[in-house]
Amino acid sequence: MEVMPSVLLALIVILIAAKIGAIIAVKFKQPEVLGELIAGIIIGNLTVFNYFGFEFIKENSNIEVLASLGVIILLFEVGLEATVGEMLKVGVKSLLVAIVGVITPFALAYYSADFILPGLNNIQKIFLGAILTATSVGITARVFKDLNFIKAPEAQIVLGAAVIDDILGLIILAIISALAQGGTMSLEAIFSISAKAIGFVVFAIVLGKMLAGRTVKLVSIFKVDGMMLTVALVLCFTGAYLADRAGLAAIVGAFAIGLVLEEVHFEVFNFKRSILSYIRPVAIFLVPIFFVLTGMHVDLAVFAEAGVINAALLISLIAIIGKLVCAWTFTTQTPLKRLIIGIGMVPRGEVGLIFASAGRALGVVDNEVYAITVIVVMITTLVAPIGLNILLQRK
Amino acid sequence: MEVMPSVLLALIVILIAAKIGAIIAVKFKQPEVLGELIAGIIIGNLTVFNYFGFEFIKENSNIEVLASLGVIILLFEVGLEATVGEMLKVGVKSLLVAIVGVITPFALAYYSADFILPGLNNIQKIFLGAILTATSVGITARVFKDLNFIKAPEAQIVLGAAVIDDILGLIILAIISALAQGGTMSLEAIFSISAKAIGFVVFAIVLGKMLAGRTVKLVSIFKVDGMMLTVALVLCFTGAYLADRAGLAAIVGAFAIGLVLEEVHFEVFNFKRSILSYIRPVAIFLVPIFFVLTGMHVDLAVFAEAGVINAALLISLIAIIGKLVCAWTFTTQTPLKRLIIGIGMVPRGEVGLIFASAGRALGVVDNEVYAITVIVVMITTLVAPIGLNILLQRK
Repeated sequence: MEVMPSVLLALIVILIAAKIGAIIAVKFKQPEVLGELIAGIIIGNLTVFNYFGFEFIKENSNIEVLASLGVIILLFEVGLEATVGEMLKVGVKSLLVAIVGVITPFALAYYSADFILPGLNNIQKIFLGAILTATSVGITARVFKDLNFIKAPEAQIVLGAAVIDDILGLIILAIISALAQGGTMSLEAIFSISAKAIGFVVFAIVLGKMLAGRTVKLVSIFKVDGMMLTVALVLCFTGAYLADRAGLAAIVGAFAIGLVLEEVHFEVFNFKRSILSYIRPVAIFLVPIFFVLTGMHVDLAVFAEAGVINAALLISLIAIIGKLVCAWTFTTQTPLKRLIIGIGMVPRGEVGLIFASAGRALGVVDNEVYAITVIVVMITTLVAPIGLNILLQRK
Repeated sequence: MEVMPSVLLALIVILIAAKIGAIIAVKFKQPEVLGELIAGIIIGNLTVFNYFGFEFIKENSNIEVLASLGVIILLFEVGLEATVGEMLKVGVKSLLVAIVGVITPFALAYYSADFILPGLNNIQKIFLGAILTATSVGITARVFKDLNFIKAPEAQIVLGAAVIDDILGLIILAIISALAQGGTMSLEAIFSISAKAIGFVVFAIVLGKMLAGRTVKLVSIFKVDGMMLTVALVLCFTGAYLADRAGLAAIVGAFAIGLVLEEVHFEVFNFKRSILSYIRPVAIFLVPIFFVLTGMHVDLAVFAEAGVINAALLISLIAIIGKLVCAWTFTTQTPLKRLIIGIGMVPRGEVGLIFASAGRALGVVDNEVYAITVIVVMITTLVAPIGLNILLQRK
């Protein structure tokens, strides 16, 4: 099929699947995102749908781009709903959660690897541990959003920790890549990578706070159709682009820009519609594409491979426990709140896959470990919406 | 560069260029779309921008998909602002405009070809004429929209004529393709193609009128985030997809669905925001991408080729006069209104290029005629916003 018809058909299928999933999820008092994910899993795996030729959606690079724009817009929206001040207030807690959430799964995986996957050498064990350190905040942010929970301190702690985790992940990836190539990592190099990543986020927030308000004020002079939304989108995409160039996830940049913008939009415009309500319809269009596609990429067939499934389940358990521990450092919080934070940190998402792919490119991660990573990503991705929903309903 | 960073950078450049162009256009009391087109021409042609590497935007297939979605959304919006009743009221006039607007440029080009481009054989002259029969309504619709003119009878006539023209174009393309392949076209075959194309539009409108209201009513039961916009988008994309599958332009399908939907949305929802205001932010994001990209594809270098430029200018003149004549059939209208209708029909856009490409594939259209077509498309594309603006300001 030509390009546009196949894109249109894919969009029709995805949007319908997303809404049917969301309707059923809401019916069962689940977050909409869980419905979208499961709808994706169903149309991605049922052979009857493959018979209809839905398979082409998974491999459509244009749909992938729309999905990526969707998750960028989502994190921008989530950033808009928080403020820099709120994030700084939970900063120390976020830092603690991030650091413990990196060390625990790494240590657990490294030391149990000999039992779960005997035969791995030292560098392979380090990579396996490193894969489990990642946090992918897209799903968690969406669940918090679906359940109207984004303003709660637990949500803020998880969001902050996810940003910090992305910086830590960048440093870890650089170190283990150097180790895998047989080299050692000098302290200077580690310092340089860390400075670049931390510098980006600080720079984005400081410069953003200085410039974003002025930009919005400046352009508001021009009475041109849709100026406000376009400025918001340009700032969002610029944040995403610069974060990517700095080696961070694009969504971290979009989140940082959203964080900064939140405080300026009410001063300038004395009408009701804030940037958030402008961006909403764009999000309604694009965000579900990301989650349905994520669901479609869950290949249920890998669970049938008996060879890896036991190891994968054990490592998934380690991945979940490793992140749950990080919230247990808050001795002053109730167990319920700790569980919410911990489960919120569980999804590994595409970040874990990026680590595994980098390892495979270096010849350190073999097909078995890669397949395990895929399963771990799937399980941790589904644990968050189901777990958080149960916990938040209780709260 | 990888996929996402290049898409993000392209979007940043396009959206900024679009808004700067729009601001300047509004300053000079021109429609915004003209500013977007010129901004596109500038960043597509100035070598200083190529030095910055903007060239990659033109070849980015993902940006092309976003642009195509943009023009589909635009025609959907335009359809939403009209009604089936309004279109039927001007139906006979539209039919007249369409038919005369096909015959005149065809005849003019066919009979003057011997003087302008000596040496073309009969079938080549037929193809040249056929290329000039097309009407691309995207630009005109946007100008009418920018200048708040979409509800005027002249605008309705042009929109209706453009839809009919698309059906006629389909029939013409089938006939001349058969002729070029040395065959003849049976009356049955012509009838079958015509029936299919007309049938699609009638079917879309009748079925749409029957089902769209019910669909909207049905889904409005479900209290799921963004249901209304998603339903509108799904219907729009479905119309575009089916039109494409029927051999028509995707935008014709989106327009037809928009036409049908307009009448249902107020009955069902007793809140202020209609489908139009939901779709607006999506349009603000995507529509300018189409027009900036259209501008970028105007390669000013072709005008420097002395060999074709004179012939191209003459054929452009024929292309313009040919469509102006079609409005002169309205003896009861003022000359100003006739000119508005005529100029509204002038743009050939991608439809002319599709004809030329089909001819090239058949070996009937040589490089010279193809280059001429490109120039004709460019000139007629720019004549509409400039001309309509002058005429509409007078009115």
